[in-house]
Amino acid sequence: MITIQQAGKSVIDTLRQRQQSADGQVTQTVSDIIEQVRQRGDGAVREYTRQFDGVDTDLIPLNRAAIQKLSADCDPAVYAALERAAGNIRDFHARQLQQSWLTTRPDGSFCGQRIRGLFRVGLYVPGGTAAYPSSVLMCAIPAKIAGVGELIMVTPPPKDDGGINPAVMAAAYIAGVDRVYLCGGAQAIAALAYGTETVPRVDKIVGPGNIYVATAKRLVYGQVDIDMVAGPSEILILADDSANPAWAAADMLSQAEHDPLASAILLTDSKTVAKAVAAELEKQLAALPRAEIAARSLADYGLILLCASMDEAVDFANALAPEHLEVLCREPMNYLGRLDNAGSIFLGPYAPEPLGDYYAGPNHVLPTGGTARFYSPLSVESFVKKTAFISYSCAALEGAKEDIVTLAQAEGLDAHARAAAIRFNVQCTMYNVQ
Amino acid sequence: MITIQQAGKSVIDTLRQRQQSADGQVTQTVSDIIEQVRQRGDGAVREYTRQFDGVDTDLIPLNRAAIQKLSADCDPAVYAALERAAGNIRDFHARQLQQSWLTTRPDGSFCGQRIRGLFRVGLYVPGGTAAYPSSVLMCAIPAKIAGVGELIMVTPPPKDDGGINPAVMAAAYIAGVDRVYLCGGAQAIAALAYGTETVPRVDKIVGPGNIYVATAKRLVYGQVDIDMVAGPSEILILADDSANPAWAAADMLSQAEHDPLASAILLTDSKTVAKAVAAELEKQLAALPRAEIAARSLADYGLILLCASMDEAVDFANALAPEHLEVLCREPMNYLGRLDNAGSIFLGPYAPEPLGDYYAGPNHVLPTGGTARFYSPLSVESFVKKTAFISYSCAALEGAKEDIVTLAQAEGLDAHARAAAIRFNVQCTMYNVQ
Repeated sequence: MITIQQAGKSVIDTLRQRQQSADGQVTQTVSDIIEQVRQRGDGAVREYTRQFDGVDTDLIPLNRAAIQKLSADCDPAVYAALERAAGNIRDFHARQLQQSWLTTRPDGSFCGQRIRGLFRVGLYVPGGTAAYPSSVLMCAIPAKIAGVGELIMVTPPPKDDGGINPAVMAAAYIAGVDRVYLCGGAQAIAALAYGTETVPRVDKIVGPGNIYVATAKRLVYGQVDIDMVAGPSEILILADDSANPAWAAADMLSQAEHDPLASAILLTDSKTVAKAVAAELEKQLAALPRAEIAARSLADYGLILLCASMDEAVDFANALAPEHLEVLCREPMNYLGRLDNAGSIFLGPYAPEPLGDYYAGPNHVLPTGGTARFYSPLSVESFVKKTAFISYSCAALEGAKEDIVTLAQAEGLDAHARAAAIRFNVQCTMYNVQ
Repeated sequence: MITIQQAGKSVIDTLRQRQQSADGQVTQTVSDIIEQVRQRGDGAVREYTRQFDGVDTDLIPLNRAAIQKLSADCDPAVYAALERAAGNIRDFHARQLQQSWLTTRPDGSFCGQRIRGLFRVGLYVPGGTAAYPSSVLMCAIPAKIAGVGELIMVTPPPKDDGGINPAVMAAAYIAGVDRVYLCGGAQAIAALAYGTETVPRVDKIVGPGNIYVATAKRLVYGQVDIDMVAGPSEILILADDSANPAWAAADMLSQAEHDPLASAILLTDSKTVAKAVAAELEKQLAALPRAEIAARSLADYGLILLCASMDEAVDFANALAPEHLEVLCREPMNYLGRLDNAGSIFLGPYAPEPLGDYYAGPNHVLPTGGTARFYSPLSVESFVKKTAFISYSCAALEGAKEDIVTLAQAEGLDAHARAAAIRFNVQCTMYNVQ
């Protein structure tokens, strides 16, 4: 089922191929949907909702009171767990909030950077079994801490056979979502990007979705901002001979169960651990409800790599830049400074990956597919915009004038020079060349 | 030449159409170049350099000593001005640097966020007259403050009729660029994104370029990070009846001279100011070396909009979300809190836009085309990546376990629940359903 092999570069190339990408047909379909919604607004959204979801929707949003009412059906244990998780997520993300600042000079000049929450943000939440209340918390809480003016959720309308997922509504209520529109798919993304008669235009769209939603987000990118388009889940575990093989295997399965394209990799310098983890995977897999998905994931993208040393394992982890990285080693903090690229790092035996997915506080929306080289987790920063501001006194500008003129002239931009010089009624030399 | 009219929504639509976009032919050409460089490395880069730049390049990088040597030809006044500008830019951007942090709990748990400079960044600098030393400072200084490991510059090789622009080399030296490769165009972007035998792969590419460079950046986005793809320059001036019309006109021209697609708009509630600015534009334009470009820009995208009140002007500015926003009004600070969307705001009569382009300290790489609604200026933040980390004690995980299991089960992700539960040898209830 799972392969044990030597660590090597070919592994990384294989993993990089996993990215789900839209074919021309999907792109064309989604482009058409976006264009129709852009031109015809609500009418088009309603038509597509009838066509794809089989539901007539009036597009009247649920307000806070309606969201609260729908969350009353949530299992009280789930509701309480969501509240405790939200508390941790809030505590962590509140520490990311930056203040506007300015710096003053005795001559009366000042400049600074203003930081503000985005005016309005749209949060996409998939329907059916892909609706994860935890993702609602992870996307909505940082937005609210950032000071986003209005946080709008869109989600496909429930079909005849069921209501709206009450745990999703509970998460939306707890996290402070302001309104929920019952529409989904590419048409919902288009509505958020361009606005319709009822759905207001937003400044940024976040949240996971299927290939149509992901493609729509790519296509409206620039018109609005988007979060990253997430690839399949990944876990990479560094395990020395102190690692508990059963725990390592359980952690690998927690990612493998997500998706046949998910990847779970264990790196170890211990042949004993490698073999024991392989055996544990086999054993634990049998008992899993999502065994079929997890088995496919492990067969295609699961690996146990035997390394000459843990140093080699660290090098491999840095090259792979995984979404989740667990350190099941002695003195795990010794590894932190050497792990260059990862979305989230789980240190030691009592930090299984799901602790980060649900509970500890850091965000679970993380860079995938090696992009942890340059991308960061979703954060409060993802929901703010910055504006620089500059004020100079007359004396300060007079002091700076000559340098500005010199630099502008060096770049051949004479009107730039002139804009500074004209304040002092000094004829720029180049204006004499008439 | 310039139109005076009432402010209205149609103006915004017209401005939005300006974005320079690649046609299918450009995209195809650039795709081919990227693929060739990806497959054949240096050989392809050299071939394209011969073809497009008419130059044989050995791709041997200039190191710090070589960069310093080439900057010796820089006019001393320019060099000194660059050094003073760099000092201001460094001072401003140093204030953006964030620290890694962690939060600890008495039970031994901790979590936090590590912030690190990107490992390697590529800076594109156009050749010929489009090579702006100020842009080298604006891109390179924040990268170095962020702690970027290696900062690589690429720029087209000089043709027979001239050497490398010494002011660009001076800026590169002052800002701390580590190496310069003499190659340009889409082939240089491809080399940075994928790496060749001589050009190392980078994690992010920044800097302006022509349509081929911009298209190449778009196409490699995801493989590496990029800065925003900049649109034509924009200035919007709020002027009440205290504004000096000659100064306002000079500031408008400083943007209009950039590009025929540039946009300069003045909003005022004073008919007197409107007429006087129009007259000043006419007068000052005649004396400008780049008069032809500026005149086309003003004719196509220049406007003087007469508003019923300065409140209306503010609303319009917020809807337009300009790159540069000048407040030539009494008590300019009273406007700051009402100006929601702008890349950089210039307050009062002594902060002409070129002060920000060259000197004051804030970055001049700013969101254009209305994207100031959700994008921020280039900053130290643009050159870091964040990684979350989590460590829990046994007791802490035991306390969290039930909530994690509850939430994982609510999402139908049983292996997630199991990963937490297995640490305590407790059989998850769902595992009894075999």
